[in-house]
Amino acid sequence: MKKIEHIGIAVKNIEESNTLFASLFGKPHYKMEEVLSEGVKTSFFKAGPNKIELLEATNPESPIAKFIEKKGEGVHHIAFAVKDIYSEIERLQKEGFTVLNTTPKKGADNKLVAFLHPKSTNGVLIELCQEIE
Amino acid sequence: MKKIEHIGIAVKNIEESNTLFASLFGKPHYKMEEVLSEGVKTSFFKAGPNKIELLEATNPESPIAKFIEKKGEGVHHIAFAVKDIYSEIERLQKEGFTVLNTTPKKGADNKLVAFLHPKSTNGVLIELCQEIE
Repeated sequence: MKKIEHIGIAVKNIEESNTLFASLFGKPHYKMEEVLSEGVKTSFFKAGPNKIELLEATNPESPIAKFIEKKGEGVHHIAFAVKDIYSEIERLQKEGFTVLNTTPKKGADNKLVAFLHPKSTNGVLIELCQEIE
Repeated sequence: MKKIEHIGIAVKNIEESNTLFASLFGKPHYKMEEVLSEGVKTSFFKAGPNKIELLEATNPESPIAKFIEKKGEGVHHIAFAVKDIYSEIERLQKEGFTVLNTTPKKGADNKLVAFLHPKSTNGVLIELCQEIE
């Protein structure tokens, strides 16, 4: 794991949360992006080498809508940057982790991503991500 | 906010979680520390410029014991490194955030820390921290 690439935070209203996090960081979000396949609108803030990704559901079937229904707003996942997502997936499967995407999929922010099931990681949804060259 | 200094994860059994996160990161924790005032045992892992802090309660009155009772294991807080914690506290109070420690307190890992109430930050418990020189 090279670093925490970003922390994903589930929010009900991304416009209101953009204002809130802009106050927190003392600067506005630097981009927004919709990921149709995941049913989410995302917004990004920088904190030095790390990012915060706000996530709002765009439909009631979105994983973010279900997360908020169950747990309320808050931290949804932690994403770690990895050098080679394919070899990391293989390594972590061998270590006994439940990898939800054995073939990485295209995520927001020009990344290949794969998730580990929180049941195998102390209740934390972990994303591996690698920049698409 | 200079960077994500660490993410705090509440766990039931820090020894078991040390093994789990060592498998995840491909390397062991580099230190453990007990914070008596908070009723926690902590363990630290590095991911490039960032850290993961595992937290186990050492008594039933510990905030970590109460958190796990209510929400289960998982992400407890996000800590951002700040340059001047006193001026950040003042700035964030003016911005309308609920700062739980208007005078920073001594935390783990040789830091002055202050927390923001999650009700004012989309359900995320945020810690500000500054290295003690």
